[in-house]
Amino acid sequence: MGIRVTVYGENVHEKKNRTVADLYPEGMHAAIAGALNRGEGIEATTVTLQEPEHGLTAEKLAQTDVLIWWGHAAHGDVQDAVVDRVCDAVWGGMGMIFLHSAHFSKPFKRLMGSPCNLTWREAGERERLWVTSRNHPIAAGIGDSFELENEEMYGEPFGVPEPLETVFVSWFQGGEVFRSGLTYKRGAGNVFYFRPGHETYPTYHDANVQRVIRNGVNWAYNPAARIADPSAAPNITVDIAPEKIVERGPKLHQDGEEGLR
Amino acid sequence: MGIRVTVYGENVHEKKNRTVADLYPEGMHAAIAGALNRGEGIEATTVTLQEPEHGLTAEKLAQTDVLIWWGHAAHGDVQDAVVDRVCDAVWGGMGMIFLHSAHFSKPFKRLMGSPCNLTWREAGERERLWVTSRNHPIAAGIGDSFELENEEMYGEPFGVPEPLETVFVSWFQGGEVFRSGLTYKRGAGNVFYFRPGHETYPTYHDANVQRVIRNGVNWAYNPAARIADPSAAPNITVDIAPEKIVERGPKLHQDGEEGLR
Amino acid sequence: MGIRVTVYGENVHEKKNRTVADLYPEGMHAAIAGALNRGEGIEATTVTLQEPEHGLTAEKLAQTDVLIWWGHAAHGDVQDAVVDRVCDAVWGGMGMIFLHSAHFSKPFKRLMGSPCNLTWREAGERERLWVTSRNHPIAAGIGDSFELENEEMYGEPFGVPEPLETVFVSWFQGGEVFRSGLTYKRGAGNVFYFRPGHETYPTYHDANVQRVIRNGVNWAYNPAARIADPSAAPNITVDIAPEKIVERGPKLHQDGEEGLR
Amino acid sequence: MGIRVTVYGENVHEKKNRTVADLYPEGMHAAIAGALNRGEGIEATTVTLQEPEHGLTAEKLAQTDVLIWWGHAAHGDVQDAVVDRVCDAVWGGMGMIFLHSAHFSKPFKRLMGSPCNLTWREAGERERLWVTSRNHPIAAGIGDSFELENEEMYGEPFGVPEPLETVFVSWFQGGEVFRSGLTYKRGAGNVFYFRPGHETYPTYHDANVQRVIRNGVNWAYNPAARIADPSAAPNITVDIAPEKIVERGPKLHQDGEEGLR
Repeated sequence: MGIRVTVYGENVHEKKNRTVADLYPEGMHAAIAGALNRGEGIEATTVTLQEPEHGLTAEKLAQTDVLIWWGHAAHGDVQDAVVDRVCDAVWGGMGMIFLHSAHFSKPFKRLMGSPCNLTWREAGERERLWVTSRNHPIAAGIGDSFELENEEMYGEPFGVPEPLETVFVSWFQGGEVFRSGLTYKRGAGNVFYFRPGHETYPTYHDANVQRVIRNGVNWAYNPAARIADPSAAPNITVDIAPEKIVERGPKLHQDGEEGLR
Repeated sequence: MGIRVTVYGENVHEKKNRTVADLYPEGMHAAIAGALNRGEGIEATTVTLQEPEHGLTAEKLAQTDVLIWWGHAAHGDVQDAVVDRVCDAVWGGMGMIFLHSAHFSKPFKRLMGSPCNLTWREAGERERLWVTSRNHPIAAGIGDSFELENEEMYGEPFGVPEPLETVFVSWFQGGEVFRSGLTYKRGAGNVFYFRPGHETYPTYHDANVQRVIRNGVNWAYNPAARIADPSAAPNITVDIAPEKIVERGPKLHQDGEEGLR
Repeated sequence: MGIRVTVYGENVHEKKNRTVADLYPEGMHAAIAGALNRGEGIEATTVTLQEPEHGLTAEKLAQTDVLIWWGHAAHGDVQDAVVDRVCDAVWGGMGMIFLHSAHFSKPFKRLMGSPCNLTWREAGERERLWVTSRNHPIAAGIGDSFELENEEMYGEPFGVPEPLETVFVSWFQGGEVFRSGLTYKRGAGNVFYFRPGHETYPTYHDANVQRVIRNGVNWAYNPAARIADPSAAPNITVDIAPEKIVERGPKLHQDGEEGLR
Repeated sequence: MGIRVTVYGENVHEKKNRTVADLYPEGMHAAIAGALNRGEGIEATTVTLQEPEHGLTAEKLAQTDVLIWWGHAAHGDVQDAVVDRVCDAVWGGMGMIFLHSAHFSKPFKRLMGSPCNLTWREAGERERLWVTSRNHPIAAGIGDSFELENEEMYGEPFGVPEPLETVFVSWFQGGEVFRSGLTYKRGAGNVFYFRPGHETYPTYHDANVQRVIRNGVNWAYNPAARIADPSAAPNITVDIAPEKIVERGPKLHQDGEEGLR
């Protein structure tokens, strides 16, 4: 069995905007999942905002090794309970990839703990992504750079924490730069942000973009068993302490009592 | 005028528990602020959970250079609107220090984007903090290590993101270790987590602990003006782009339109 | 074909010290390689200080995916030309694992750019390694901690740069702590430092230690082709610049001239 | 007394090349030091390659809080003994700033442990530096970006380790990007790399560049006393161990013996 990928698509502009519908007749999520399924070793399915619980039930997340998120127009419609569930899955070890305008999605903002803002311009300008970490597995098969002839500009300062590694930095025709490939770890889960993918351009049909997303899935995937309760804070009482010690001094808690939250 | 510090104290166990009340008759927040005020260059005030808006009004935060947070029993009673306001201030450039059990406070979990969990034991055991980043300003005046004869144990794995720098690592008598001094940046704000400070021990009367907190204030303080809207995502249209470019291709947005969130 | 590992052993104390010889009759390098060869997917060979060029010829390095280094008594006898060659291979993409006293080996100091010093004590005390990055591939199959009943102590401050990730922190019976598993990237190469392995104790016969080294090999291995000249600094003249530009202003270099070093 | 800055200038092209001599009649080092001396709180002096020991005697380094390094044509002429001394001073707590072509200087390569290579083009093109870490002290007083109308291009991939923080990223007219402001810590010393400064352009007369260098000095400066022997590795024998332990098992070293290197 391959790596089980779930692609979340907001699926709003595909329905409302003729340009987007023409580029992605089955939806952007379907284009992304389709490209992943054409290669070996990945089994990708899709879910959308419009489904109950956005398709992201506890069962679905339990069967997801890596979750890919694309959203733009309707971040606010994503239910907070689903966001909690997604973050919990990441903390337990699920990999997660955020694409483009998902920088303002609820789960990305929650996992980053920072504003996640940027500057932007929708002018169909040229973007060139440069690899800043040579031979990084996410850049496998990409040379030192690749181009997208038409893309939305995202500019610095990008309001995210310093990453584990900066993998790509983008050059834009209009004069801006952007850290466009960033890796993080949150709890036991690997997180990758990848910038390209404005919905009015054919970005997800680009071979290099597809390759980076595939590489990102392989990088984010962790074969270890999901941690059941990734927020547990166990009380290691003196009788089970690694070293023999004797309890001293005043206490707040009685033995066996739960910790405070 | 010195650095303006506000110390948030939960002020619950000081009222309910005789041991804590005896150690900190004016409250733990008052002990922390008092130690800061005894030195030069810092003007510390206090606020508590019980005040309206926990004392953390927009006005108070605007006059706070560094916010220190201690809470344990009543994390859940902190209003979400105040948590939003505090995180916004950090993103705009306010420094913030989280002490001990504040690892499970709402603003720390929000800023970390991770579970922030750990293991624990209340046995009055010995803790020894080792400096892992020589000459770090937060460790100024501390040698290679210092001891606290009685402390609560916190053990790894600590569910936080990899920090900018690990400044202290703790040894515990019962056999555990803990990364007990960690630095982060979130938006424009410097964040420092410092482990010691269980309420049933006289930790905040310890000279080394007081020195580290003072150093932490100096480190976290940023003299730059607070960013007014740290989440703003301005549209840099072609007419104001740094380089002259011509708009191309299909668009979602009309000129002057706000971006989507 | 599996991952090709070369284990460098200094092979000095095995010849001089009866305790070490009894523990590792074929040498420590042979014990380490043997453990790797007992599993699937790795083909380990050994080289020693005493061989011409310490066995680390250009040919040998070209056939090495991951190099493991153990040395202690004779760091100074390692030829500088070989150190250069090893660092060059790392920069080109070879993985490298440094064990225990290799913290003071020439290639480790060269790759870290820092003093790499620490405190130490040879007293056969208990060490307990705690995982600080849950589900990290290097800690796969290890629980939250494991023990070594007799080890040399290494203590903080450890004079190394802040790592990409801190994977293990050690507790020592005598009161010290140590960041005992650290990851780095240098050029295109992954580097892992792992602390245990004093020669007078049976550490490399320990199942957990063997597992971590195996995991480390899998983590450090990069299937990408080795970069031929990892220090090349190509001149991208205006005629091959990604964007059309016109040369302006005064110049030091004539076209086609090499850069300065 | 202010922060004591020493500016090392290679002082070769100023003597050989008319353009450089016209721009910097007293030498580039003098221009850099002069700008620092025009403000408050810094006392800058200069040394050059041509002086005995390049002016960087043990006495001079002992009186230097922050060393600034500019070199290009004659990296190979810098004596290895002086490089060792400089790195030792950094490890002991001296701040250090590397400018432009100093990316290939011996002390930078030594401190980074990596190839430090890049791509380049001398075409007088426009560079725009974007701030990627808002309110970072090194970017104080700079807005979100600033421009240099004529600069040499440096392009990614830049062969350096992942920094503590990426402070600036440059956009170049010819299509490249570069991480042009990077912070590191090596031993107890703060290290800042800042890209601009090709010798045929008036870069060090630019007010923004001067401001960043000044900010960099303030950031790199550490008031703590210099560590006398930053590579010392003391033996903490059982009689001085923090916790009472009894020596066990076989030993290599006799008590009081020096460790191996």
